[in-house]
Amino acid sequence: MKKSLIALAALATISGAAMAQSSVSVYGRLDASLGSEKAGASGAAQSQSQMSSGLLSTSRLGFRGTEDLGGGLKAIFQLETTLGVDTGAAFGAGFDRQSIVGLTGGFGAVKLGRTETAFDDIRDISVGSALWDSEFSPTKIAYANSVGGVAVGHVADYSSRSSNQIRYESPNFGGFTGGISYGLDEQASPVKRDVTAFNLRYRSGPLDVGLGYQEQNHEVSATKREYTTLAGAYDFGAVRVSAGYNMAEQGTLESNGFVVGANMPMGPWDFSVGYAYNKSENAGVDTAKSKGLAFGVTYSLSKRTRVYAAYLNGDAENGAGTEVAERRLYAAGIRHDF
Amino acid sequence: MKKSLIALAALATISGAAMAQSSVSVYGRLDASLGSEKAGASGAAQSQSQMSSGLLSTSRLGFRGTEDLGGGLKAIFQLETTLGVDTGAAFGAGFDRQSIVGLTGGFGAVKLGRTETAFDDIRDISVGSALWDSEFSPTKIAYANSVGGVAVGHVADYSSRSSNQIRYESPNFGGFTGGISYGLDEQASPVKRDVTAFNLRYRSGPLDVGLGYQEQNHEVSATKREYTTLAGAYDFGAVRVSAGYNMAEQGTLESNGFVVGANMPMGPWDFSVGYAYNKSENAGVDTAKSKGLAFGVTYSLSKRTRVYAAYLNGDAENGAGTEVAERRLYAAGIRHDF
Amino acid sequence: MKKSLIALAALATISGAAMAQSSVSVYGRLDASLGSEKAGASGAAQSQSQMSSGLLSTSRLGFRGTEDLGGGLKAIFQLETTLGVDTGAAFGAGFDRQSIVGLTGGFGAVKLGRTETAFDDIRDISVGSALWDSEFSPTKIAYANSVGGVAVGHVADYSSRSSNQIRYESPNFGGFTGGISYGLDEQASPVKRDVTAFNLRYRSGPLDVGLGYQEQNHEVSATKREYTTLAGAYDFGAVRVSAGYNMAEQGTLESNGFVVGANMPMGPWDFSVGYAYNKSENAGVDTAKSKGLAFGVTYSLSKRTRVYAAYLNGDAENGAGTEVAERRLYAAGIRHDF
Repeated sequence: MKKSLIALAALATISGAAMAQSSVSVYGRLDASLGSEKAGASGAAQSQSQMSSGLLSTSRLGFRGTEDLGGGLKAIFQLETTLGVDTGAAFGAGFDRQSIVGLTGGFGAVKLGRTETAFDDIRDISVGSALWDSEFSPTKIAYANSVGGVAVGHVADYSSRSSNQIRYESPNFGGFTGGISYGLDEQASPVKRDVTAFNLRYRSGPLDVGLGYQEQNHEVSATKREYTTLAGAYDFGAVRVSAGYNMAEQGTLESNGFVVGANMPMGPWDFSVGYAYNKSENAGVDTAKSKGLAFGVTYSLSKRTRVYAAYLNGDAENGAGTEVAERRLYAAGIRHDF
Repeated sequence: MKKSLIALAALATISGAAMAQSSVSVYGRLDASLGSEKAGASGAAQSQSQMSSGLLSTSRLGFRGTEDLGGGLKAIFQLETTLGVDTGAAFGAGFDRQSIVGLTGGFGAVKLGRTETAFDDIRDISVGSALWDSEFSPTKIAYANSVGGVAVGHVADYSSRSSNQIRYESPNFGGFTGGISYGLDEQASPVKRDVTAFNLRYRSGPLDVGLGYQEQNHEVSATKREYTTLAGAYDFGAVRVSAGYNMAEQGTLESNGFVVGANMPMGPWDFSVGYAYNKSENAGVDTAKSKGLAFGVTYSLSKRTRVYAAYLNGDAENGAGTEVAERRLYAAGIRHDF
Repeated sequence: MKKSLIALAALATISGAAMAQSSVSVYGRLDASLGSEKAGASGAAQSQSQMSSGLLSTSRLGFRGTEDLGGGLKAIFQLETTLGVDTGAAFGAGFDRQSIVGLTGGFGAVKLGRTETAFDDIRDISVGSALWDSEFSPTKIAYANSVGGVAVGHVADYSSRSSNQIRYESPNFGGFTGGISYGLDEQASPVKRDVTAFNLRYRSGPLDVGLGYQEQNHEVSATKREYTTLAGAYDFGAVRVSAGYNMAEQGTLESNGFVVGANMPMGPWDFSVGYAYNKSENAGVDTAKSKGLAFGVTYSLSKRTRVYAAYLNGDAENGAGTEVAERRLYAAGIRHDF
């Protein structure tokens, strides 16, 4: 009995400290790799040994928390910065990845601040696995307006995040969810610079399909860009396959592309492959074509830590079909979550 | 008994982790709102929809802790950055709000580093409530040297914080406290750029009154600014009223202003109103007059989370009495502490 | 029994929160002092009152953690930024002090990212105590290429850290440890900009000796710098003495220097003294000579908090033996770890 009283006393002491902490969780992901990359104009590019941060998925550091307000209502917040674990770079643009405060409940979730657009969620389906959301992604080449600094004629890729954004996410209706986001124009009228997006998604058992749309306006430069994505994935157990179709328009310039991928878990191993292709034309005349292929394998040392090896190969052609740029990289690394 | 032993064992495990954490507390405040603002030259200003950070009170993220050194002596530290929850901006100027280490004890408190000047504490009394310390404050207009970018002829507002500062805060003597702060000149002599301030405050039951003085020197530009504030508040229970008088001098330029406010708590609701006025003259000739009025209402979802709506209206005149600048904003938002 | 059940219940509640935190530890060091410094060209330098950050040891804020992967293997990470507690400066260059992820085990440790070079560890031995690793160090003057902004003819001091670095640290073999680090060239060939370093160290009881070597290449400016250090310390109990010899070469320019130090703990007190000397010649012709002397005393208020006073005096001569620069400072401060 004495011991339990001591326990209680010790508990009281701790709980003060622990409680003070309980509303905030510090978390992060560090992804560092060593490898070689060759990127630039075709024929002129030279390969280089390098350390990279975020090859598999962006290195980050964040703070987040939830407060139960009763009646199913919760206050939420999240602050997250990109990290360059290779150089220590952080907070260069503050909490550039996540900076939101909001409420969740039976009605869904409302978030205010900087975060992903609703459109960005659907792109995530087709890129298949955690392997495909960063530098290593073949889509980085296929949809890139330049490969290794050599400009090509695609519609610029979409903005995955927006500041000054209000975002609503619906609850789950028998597998269906929807989301809408609007990043406010904060220039004086008539200049507009806003980002509007929505998504519709259906998830049930092994199936995950979604449709996304995003519109970006900039009235001064008179540019309006529209992005449409239809993507899906099916998990067969031994293998998960995914595919997505993407269309981007800006005036008379139009880009059409797709991405396909598969990943196979085998015990602690996970093997992945992905391919992305994109073709653009201006008023019916070809302007650019680019494609990327990537392979990856990860080995889990624990739920939070894995080592990996990856290979990426891609190139870009001009409208005449001549290869103008190339990018090739291989690397091995470690990714740790905390 | 077995259970209590298990408890102890579990406790031992936890306490290692908890103890490692116990000296630091991560905390913050996220204040995001949606609204409309019209600010600029009178007649020419256009209104704009926007998301704001820190309308009620500045969004922030910090780390702080206390170590008990025995005999009533404690070591303290605090690091705090301004956050722009709308864009994720943070650490742009490092821990710009608080960056101090110090000691507290029976003698009071001594803090070294960057923090508020002793003068700034007294301004806090007259601005009445948590509603009035940020963008939303009518004093932001009344004491502003420009409203919406249109310069007017006031003495520039005081520096609320100083780097390289040593600050002393006395213990409480029967309701009386005093404080003094000195921000060092860190330029080679004879250039001086220092900030000296003190305050005297009396708090007893519903009454809170204070006097503050601050002097800012810059020998190169040959400017010396002096600020004096007398402020007080009385809490009647149903309503808390506050008022402050402010005088600023720079050579022949002199500004005189006041601020009055009231806030009424009603269950989870809190209604606030504030008005601020400032008038300047140079060698007896009027140079500027400006004023601001603000209303606010907050609804507490919990101790840590509240939603709010706010309205602000202000303008500035030149010496001839012609309105030259205006600012009007209304917004609704959420503020979450963690 | 009831109480122990309550303890268990409370424990369960806490452990969720505490566990969520257990993988990350937030830590730091804040070192602030007030003093006077006179630094610049001899005869022309003027003394100035100032607040300093990191006089004894650099102020910092960090996040670190360890994950047990089983079989003796652990994943580790550390992120650490320099703080300027006097001004709040932080994250100016991100996590400039530490930004690593790695693995430790029976084989030693492997770290990827930004951290100290293997050479830097040996310099730490000869600088004797915690007193000697920052602004206060006499080596700051002796090895400085300029004292108070007046350039002198030494080989520039070594880079204590490198980005894009892979570092290996051996396990302890009967007192012996070794380390090697390589900071990758990340410019396109043939430009090289890499940092290679190793160390060998023997620690046994009161003895600590080490050898370190570092090579820095920059092919564009055609500079290659080599640094060699031999250092050791012996703890007699009442006093710990340390000494180090340092050689630096860059083309025909060669610098040779040494540092000696002692520190005496007496209860909560610790008295320190250090002296450093450096002399350079270019193709046999003297170019520069500089030296620094420092005294310090610390008083521990606790394991984590100490107050201190320090004095430093140094100067630099040109090749003709004329004193060209001087630096003198004294200060008193507080250092707090959390």
